[in-house]
Amino acid sequence: MDPYVVIYVIGWVLQFEAVFLLVPVLVGLGYRETRFALLYLAVAAVCLITGTVLKLSKNRKKELYIREGFASVALAWVFLSIFGAIPFVLTGEIPSFTNALFETISGFTKTGASILSEVESLSHISLFWRSFTHWLGGMGVFMLILAVLPMLGDHSINLMRAESAGPSVEKLFPKVRDTALLTYSLYVLLTILGTVSLVISGLNLFDSSTLMFGTVGTGGFSVYNDSVVSLAPAQQWIIAIFMTLGAVNYTAYYYLILRRFRAILDFEEIWVYFGMIIVATLLIAGNIHGYYPSAGETFRHSYFMVTSIMSTSGFATTDFNNWPAFSKSIMLILMLIGGCAGSTAGGFKISRLVILIKAIRKEFRSLIHPEEHKKIYINKETLSAETLRSVNSFAALYFVTLFISILLISIGNNFDFMTLFSSASTCMNCVGIAFEKTGYGCNFDIYSGFAKYVLMLDMIAGRLEFFPLLALFFPSCWRKY
Amino acid sequence: MDPYVVIYVIGWVLQFEAVFLLVPVLVGLGYRETRFALLYLAVAAVCLITGTVLKLSKNRKKELYIREGFASVALAWVFLSIFGAIPFVLTGEIPSFTNALFETISGFTKTGASILSEVESLSHISLFWRSFTHWLGGMGVFMLILAVLPMLGDHSINLMRAESAGPSVEKLFPKVRDTALLTYSLYVLLTILGTVSLVISGLNLFDSSTLMFGTVGTGGFSVYNDSVVSLAPAQQWIIAIFMTLGAVNYTAYYYLILRRFRAILDFEEIWVYFGMIIVATLLIAGNIHGYYPSAGETFRHSYFMVTSIMSTSGFATTDFNNWPAFSKSIMLILMLIGGCAGSTAGGFKISRLVILIKAIRKEFRSLIHPEEHKKIYINKETLSAETLRSVNSFAALYFVTLFISILLISIGNNFDFMTLFSSASTCMNCVGIAFEKTGYGCNFDIYSGFAKYVLMLDMIAGRLEFFPLLALFFPSCWRKY
Repeated sequence: MDPYVVIYVIGWVLQFEAVFLLVPVLVGLGYRETRFALLYLAVAAVCLITGTVLKLSKNRKKELYIREGFASVALAWVFLSIFGAIPFVLTGEIPSFTNALFETISGFTKTGASILSEVESLSHISLFWRSFTHWLGGMGVFMLILAVLPMLGDHSINLMRAESAGPSVEKLFPKVRDTALLTYSLYVLLTILGTVSLVISGLNLFDSSTLMFGTVGTGGFSVYNDSVVSLAPAQQWIIAIFMTLGAVNYTAYYYLILRRFRAILDFEEIWVYFGMIIVATLLIAGNIHGYYPSAGETFRHSYFMVTSIMSTSGFATTDFNNWPAFSKSIMLILMLIGGCAGSTAGGFKISRLVILIKAIRKEFRSLIHPEEHKKIYINKETLSAETLRSVNSFAALYFVTLFISILLISIGNNFDFMTLFSSASTCMNCVGIAFEKTGYGCNFDIYSGFAKYVLMLDMIAGRLEFFPLLALFFPSCWRKY
Repeated sequence: MDPYVVIYVIGWVLQFEAVFLLVPVLVGLGYRETRFALLYLAVAAVCLITGTVLKLSKNRKKELYIREGFASVALAWVFLSIFGAIPFVLTGEIPSFTNALFETISGFTKTGASILSEVESLSHISLFWRSFTHWLGGMGVFMLILAVLPMLGDHSINLMRAESAGPSVEKLFPKVRDTALLTYSLYVLLTILGTVSLVISGLNLFDSSTLMFGTVGTGGFSVYNDSVVSLAPAQQWIIAIFMTLGAVNYTAYYYLILRRFRAILDFEEIWVYFGMIIVATLLIAGNIHGYYPSAGETFRHSYFMVTSIMSTSGFATTDFNNWPAFSKSIMLILMLIGGCAGSTAGGFKISRLVILIKAIRKEFRSLIHPEEHKKIYINKETLSAETLRSVNSFAALYFVTLFISILLISIGNNFDFMTLFSSASTCMNCVGIAFEKTGYGCNFDIYSGFAKYVLMLDMIAGRLEFFPLLALFFPSCWRKY
């Protein structure tokens, strides 16, 4: 590993964070929260200076192999969160640094798990920054940077690879920058469309934009204490639809623009995704029949919660803790699966699930028909042995991490199993809402400091899909050339 | 698939069950439970006749490929359980056929999950039969049959393969029968040693032998209402040690007999197994410090419960539901892992876990050092790509089955998540004890009929390691030649 490259990349990211921090500064000034705006500005300045100093380590070689990519991205996300947490502490709105860090990591990893018991007393500037981290982390900080500036030549794909979700990162264009640019344009477009829709529905611009950061970024931080329970049904519908759209594989949008309808029809992941939403919505609506006054309301809550948890956003329109066990089981399973690869959604990802199920079928076939040698096809293309192997390792790491996390957060936190299981999995899958003691209306401040740090690691591990974070703990990764 | 071979094998198994049923008949006569003994004898007669009729389907070809092996074993286990359940219904001791079938499947799959709220009022003959099913199913019904009679030539390995646990079935000897014979001799030896130890400790022969069926067979049915809580500490120690021994890979005993100590040292699975028992015992003992009057008692309960759940037996010396969340998390994770392959234990199996973790490490290394091509070694031998693939598919099937089961048993059973999760996993991993509503002192009669059938399928699926049962639902498996 070349440590200079890693330090250089971190410096670059911090410089960018300084720029990102200027947005809430403007918001703060607009709302006449001048003192807080100055504090945010000061943090931006410190960010810029630290970044610039770190960038002095510029190495002539500048080769960014996958291991530098992994280490840079993992460490950059940690530094990004540390600096992003400082304003919350300085403004006194989240005095404990551990809690501020939890909130910021939850923001950048677009998890949306909160340690705050209420948010409506926060300043506009902090509320905005909190939601803005969702939007920045949602599609990826590096993807944004690479869209704006080609950082380190074509090896930059290693940064995107480390940060992007899914079994394989498709380069839609030969150049990394073009792919990043297109993806971000779509992301911005969705956000604007959503915000405009909410504004038309009667919400003010501040609430509309912050909610949409959490919606299109599939994060889940709200600006209200009750998530989005008290919003009008039409507004809940808007958020639900944009959550659904946010967790679609963005490659599908690309095909749509190019009118490659055949490719969309062959795109198994998105059809399984929509199919699961429909089936789960109907099953839950049937199961919670009678819980709400009208069939329309039942269906709205059912669809909203299904898409909220599958897109790994975590907004809520109702307290689903009261639902029967069958509905809660569905929700928990959807939480583990998550949305599509190549989107902002977290979780195991639907494409991986499809691949695993096809692999089981193939394994079984080759057991009972040893003479046959069939390949696995996905989207009508042959699945490479390499991708299958990586999906298998991902699955193993996923469950190993999940159960070790449950074990660790149970130390000293004598909660029921549903709380522990859903807390760990909601953080690891970047969802944000959980059940029982960390369910609707509750928060993660109930955990000990140690457990909070475990959950923070889970969020980063889940967001970066485990391997980049693992690089930091692997001695062979730090070996000199 | 050749249906005649399948029918033939089922017939053969039923004939054997008729013989097995004679053992409780003798016990019943010994205890002067003549009426019940005659009922058991009648069932044995029906079994014999049915078996003989089915065996008339003898096909001249008699080729037993893997798909016939899978289907035969899966169906044979179902028929074995159906006939085994009849005596409980006829004697009126378990009037509901669903419940009787649940109890019998739980017996044969050496799960030990019960629908009975108390067992001490049962007749000796039924108590004996209940525990005896553990012993028969523990090491495998087919392995017993193959040890006695070489059924269908050397293709019989396909029956053993379908029934045996672990990523690969090692033929210790070139002939199937020799392998089966050696394994069963060791199994009988352990059972006799255990029974003699309990008799020496002061227990009567009936209690000693039935408890040892559940111990060496890693089943968990007790002849007391309180599992083994009221036994003397020395007796609990005996049971604990034989549970530990029962879940050791039997190949290790074979090496021990041949004095191949080098091979034992290289045998990773058993060292990981013992290591996990020690670490888990110490962690739990530390965590439950103060729950029991003395350090000795704390340690005994901790070791007993750890080995009970890891060996997938399910005996209990204490109500572990009161333990803190950390200890319960450890227990739950151990339940999922289970014991060694090539033993009577259920669960995911330690060898598979070791293989998966090595595969993760290899995948990570090949990501960061793409130029390297390292192999995975297990027990100092290269792991074949085929075995790795099958372990991966097993893992995927394992979790898919677990979560689908949780979903299905939650229909109409509005229990807490720990109850649902642990019920499904205790059945699928053939453990028998669970937590909360199905924890110590509780039973599975709380579930609806539908959920009971789901759990029965889980037990058989887990015992046969999924693929054989899957064969019944795969259309291509039934295709004619």
